Amino acid sequence: VAVEVVVGFLGCGVVGSAALRLLRDHRADIERRSGCRFEVSRILVRDAHRSRDVPVSPELFTTESRDVLAGQDVAVVVELMGGIEPARTLVLEAFRAGKHVVTANKELLANHGRELFEEAEANGVNLSFEAAVAGGIPLIHPLTRALAGERLTRVLGIVNGTTNYVLSRMTDDGMSFGEALAEAERLGFAERDPSDDIEGFDAAAKCAILATVAFDTPVVAGDVYREGISRVSAEDVEFADRLGYVVKLLAVAELEEGDLAVRVHPAMIPRHHPLASVRDSYNAVFVEGPKVGQLMFYGRGAGGDPTATAVVGDLVEVGRSLKDGRTGVMLASRFSEERRIRAMEAMESQYYLLLDVIDRPGVLAQIAGAFGQNKVSIKSVWQEGFGDDALLVMITHRANEGALQQTARDLRALEPVLEVRSVMRVEGAE
Amino acid sequence: VAVEVVVGFLGCGVVGSAALRLLRDHRADIERRSGCRFEVSRILVRDAHRSRDVPVSPELFTTESRDVLAGQDVAVVVELMGGIEPARTLVLEAFRAGKHVVTANKELLANHGRELFEEAEANGVNLSFEAAVAGGIPLIHPLTRALAGERLTRVLGIVNGTTNYVLSRMTDDGMSFGEALAEAERLGFAERDPSDDIEGFDAAAKCAILATVAFDTPVVAGDVYREGISRVSAEDVEFADRLGYVVKLLAVAELEEGDLAVRVHPAMIPRHHPLASVRDSYNAVFVEGPKVGQLMFYGRGAGGDPTATAVVGDLVEVGRSLKDGRTGVMLASRFSEERRIRAMEAMESQYYLLLDVIDRPGVLAQIAGAFGQNKVSIKSVWQEGFGDDALLVMITHRANEGALQQTARDLRALEPVLEVRSVMRVEGAE
Repeated sequence: VAVEVVVGFLGCGVVGSAALRLLRDHRADIERRSGCRFEVSRILVRDAHRSRDVPVSPELFTTESRDVLAGQDVAVVVELMGGIEPARTLVLEAFRAGKHVVTANKELLANHGRELFEEAEANGVNLSFEAAVAGGIPLIHPLTRALAGERLTRVLGIVNGTTNYVLSRMTDDGMSFGEALAEAERLGFAERDPSDDIEGFDAAAKCAILATVAFDTPVVAGDVYREGISRVSAEDVEFADRLGYVVKLLAVAELEEGDLAVRVHPAMIPRHHPLASVRDSYNAVFVEGPKVGQLMFYGRGAGGDPTATAVVGDLVEVGRSLKDGRTGVMLASRFSEERRIRAMEAMESQYYLLLDVIDRPGVLAQIAGAFGQNKVSIKSVWQEGFGDDALLVMITHRANEGALQQTARDLRALEPVLEVRSVMRVEGAE
Repeated sequence: VAVEVVVGFLGCGVVGSAALRLLRDHRADIERRSGCRFEVSRILVRDAHRSRDVPVSPELFTTESRDVLAGQDVAVVVELMGGIEPARTLVLEAFRAGKHVVTANKELLANHGRELFEEAEANGVNLSFEAAVAGGIPLIHPLTRALAGERLTRVLGIVNGTTNYVLSRMTDDGMSFGEALAEAERLGFAERDPSDDIEGFDAAAKCAILATVAFDTPVVAGDVYREGISRVSAEDVEFADRLGYVVKLLAVAELEEGDLAVRVHPAMIPRHHPLASVRDSYNAVFVEGPKVGQLMFYGRGAGGDPTATAVVGDLVEVGRSLKDGRTGVMLASRFSEERRIRAMEAMESQYYLLLDVIDRPGVLAQIAGAFGQNKVSIKSVWQEGFGDDALLVMITHRANEGALQQTARDLRALEPVLEVRSVMRVEGAE
């Protein structure tokens, strides 16, 4: 016999509506698979009288959070309001009232993760957040549970659909950044103010959450080095293609000598790397560990329906534990590794550089000298054009970020170097 | 405080040794993440005196299964013997003794799944089998739990590393099937008798398990239509490339009008399909559903260490539920959908055909007529060569398998058709 689990909703936007439809449309399947019958009690909204395309009785809507949080029968609170406040206060209240919480709130997790984990653990309740990163892609559970026996070393993610769409149009159709962004806006893949996506803020928040679960260390969005894609040129994309690479906005979290390096920036990745074939608005997260080798999880990173499947998956997980009389979790004690966040200058990567140079005898030796002085080793050099119009394309071996930045400064000071047109990291190759 | 969970092993081969090493080497991490301390009691082996590279005391080895199964303290039995008997009998005994079971045994699941699910449920214990399909790739849990709110429509898998390695060498290096297989054998990617892999038996067993978990219907290996890759020619691979496709051995499970179609065969998939970039001995499983869209899970499908991470992940999952006082599962009642297995003739796909024809006026009309009579619609035709040496390459729209086979028979009877050189399904395009 199915156990009844009463669920309260905080928020009823795109994801909330999709989750409510999913709970209704797939009711029988969900009950058979989970052993639980999910009943929605109250739904907190801003305007209780607005008409909504949601299959629930209108009197469930309320503008009073206590209607959701004070309900004795409510076992699980689904938080889909987004943003930090009032979501944070309400989630903490839910914990203190002994409610489990399922959330899709990326900002909240990426800024107040530690506080939430501790409060959930102190109250013996669950905090589930599969939907907060990469929408419909099962990621949090695989990383925290299926891979609980592994020590991951690196996570590389394409976690922002807008920027991946823009870069795909630049790569596949030869568009400029501006053209590609205009198309993304026209097709609804970009917000009216796209800077949260384009400048990498969205990806940085997701990077913080991924780093937290992959390395058991509470990481906040502010810890993540961040560079957006607005300076990626059609030229960079074309040279990447000629060299066998594809340009992607990557979220990187990796262990370096026990420290944690976390960063979001455009990067070239080899064409045969599994992430290279992640096109359009799709997301994917690639992880590596010494035992499991390489894994990749691919799918829709946003959208009401995909994200709603993650919310319902979390509800099913919580519901099953309620059914089985399970108590408590251990989020805070799990995410208790104390790792230092490595300064960007101390990180390592390979680099691509595009230099506008005067082509005359001795110039290459001068340029190579600037690399050598900084102990940056050149992997390949390629000259395009001649005379005053010469471009030099260079790929380095893995090098220290600080040394590379010093090399770029030294190059700019060289008389035959007219311009350092681009510097981009190369990931997933060496 | 960590809860002690006593684990008995049945079998200590490559995966078992790797799992024991993982439990020792990552002991502290596993304890922090799971709240459990896993203690290995006894290990059933054929020869208790053989020396093994395993970090456990030699007196743990035993040749008596009752030492593992009758231990009052043993809470979880890890079955890594492989094959059906005696594994089946021992797993059933473990259930009856109230032990949870974690297994990597593909044959057992693919042939006796229903019996195992029922016996586990009757005894209120868990049966976990993440390691039975696609080694280190978290798949069973995401499909059954994270996607519990979704109704999947299709699963396409590259689930056999040997055949994917062979086809990768044919595609990327232009080798013949024989050359590629010889290289796979030399590098240890193929068994001495490779027919289980090459003829698709291994993939068919995995297909049955994937279909079971994706569609809640107990499917056995014998239900799965099966065709291996030994007849895939260098010519097929080359034409696929020219047409924008890649040849892969696919495990397909999909719903067609409420029936379940399950099959393993070589297929052409579009070059931009996420599965197309799964190279060498890697595995990947691609799933589709109306809500979640497209998802793909990629990684190492075999090998001691990757598979051991899945075994330990399952142990952690079981351990956490023990810690939380959880009881019972519901495997049998979950996998209780009664779906008919669709006969191969009733299935639908797109097809590629390679015909050796005499090139003279009116021949194409005759050939097109044979397709039209069988209601198979041609999507594209391409002629290679002239006169007596002409080859005709054709791709159809989605058509009925029976109708396509009849078309092939009709074509063979046409006088200007010298030979139907290849017929191959095309998946993931329309």
